[in-house]
Amino acid sequence: MTDAELQFAVERLEARYAAAIDDDRLEDWPLFFTETCRYQIITRENYEKKLPVGIFFANSRGMLIDRVRSLREANIYEAQRYRHILSPTLVTRREAGAVEAQTNYQVIRTTQEGAMMLFSTGRYLDRIVIGGPEPLFAEKLVLCDSRRVDTLLAIPL
Amino acid sequence: MTDAELQFAVERLEARYAAAIDDDRLEDWPLFFTETCRYQIITRENYEKKLPVGIFFANSRGMLIDRVRSLREANIYEAQRYRHILSPTLVTRREAGAVEAQTNYQVIRTTQEGAMMLFSTGRYLDRIVIGGPEPLFAEKLVLCDSRRVDTLLAIPL
Amino acid sequence: MTDAELQFAVERLEARYAAAIDDDRLEDWPLFFTETCRYQIITRENYEKKLPVGIFFANSRGMLIDRVRSLREANIYEAQRYRHILSPTLVTRREAGAVEAQTNYQVIRTTQEGAMMLFSTGRYLDRIVIGGPEPLFAEKLVLCDSRRVDTLLAIPL
Repeated sequence: MTDAELQFAVERLEARYAAAIDDDRLEDWPLFFTETCRYQIITRENYEKKLPVGIFFANSRGMLIDRVRSLREANIYEAQRYRHILSPTLVTRREAGAVEAQTNYQVIRTTQEGAMMLFSTGRYLDRIVIGGPEPLFAEKLVLCDSRRVDTLLAIPL
Repeated sequence: MTDAELQFAVERLEARYAAAIDDDRLEDWPLFFTETCRYQIITRENYEKKLPVGIFFANSRGMLIDRVRSLREANIYEAQRYRHILSPTLVTRREAGAVEAQTNYQVIRTTQEGAMMLFSTGRYLDRIVIGGPEPLFAEKLVLCDSRRVDTLLAIPL
Repeated sequence: MTDAELQFAVERLEARYAAAIDDDRLEDWPLFFTETCRYQIITRENYEKKLPVGIFFANSRGMLIDRVRSLREANIYEAQRYRHILSPTLVTRREAGAVEAQTNYQVIRTTQEGAMMLFSTGRYLDRIVIGGPEPLFAEKLVLCDSRRVDTLLAIPL
């Protein structure tokens, strides 16, 4: 696979991932991860200070499935709409069967009344397993720029 | 054409399209469409409920040309500046001579006084004809996340 | 180099450039430029009117290094965090050893308290030298959409 082909594959994964969340297909969200995985939402500040205090943490696809179930039961997600805008991905490391990449993201939330607000900006730090039918996230750290995150509303980012 | 080459061609079309609008080259805007086409601005909500009520609809390049003429006569467009930020495109279907693709977009408006505001976010749902000298939009649905759209100001998105 | 490979190389340069600024690795910022170069921040309005009044101008890597030193001494940069969201790059010209390209950008600033604001939107107009170990900017014009720019805070964009 050439560098340009790898870039295509990684950006396609990111675009499909974002589309699933924006389309409220939350049940698809865990399927972008390997069975054993690491998904963490953490402020950039805590990440840089190596404080392990995150907003959300999961280390298996099963925990992500549980998270979706909770969100569905609480009816939290549906009241708003989310839109991801992603910056082109930067592949930072390439090895046999896996790549590391970072992607700047922005999420805009629109309320049912139509008010738009900047909901979150930050960076994905991803470890992606390639070689299977589709690439999958073995690790996805979501570094939020702002500490003002409503932890009760820990929706997928 | 490889997947990566197709991706390149589609993203280039989207970037040229956005640049024409941002540069106030509105007269170039209809030229990105086939003669018979479908261009529609519709809220995401109405689209999902299959309500045919759109903010703007055109089914020919001629109608788009008329739209530009109206905007020029009303002097509406020039008072503000627009900036498109596009997320990498996701090709969802590929067939002989055409592709379907979706692209998350964000438009920021800047007034003459310098105030910036989030003007619109949403998704393009495109059907693109390839094979000619340049790819063209046979269909472009603009799904706006917010219902708060000033319909009098239906500028190209 | 195919068009798709060139696109990859250019977008990778833009992503690395943005990451250096967002990561507060300002000392790396001048290294993305050729020794003799042109870096200019100017409002879109002044650029279009061909008014030479810019917000910041440098014509050598040395001037950029000086700029970073001033920012460090004033402790200006560190109090905020910046996040670049880039739109896919549009290559507008290709010649032997160089390309011209434009990239829509958006920068979101997050204060230490966690408030997020749209800091700047606009377009990069770049002239990029290729052929060396890494592509480099021979010219980077940053056209800001808004005239409201705090010139005292002329941080890299």
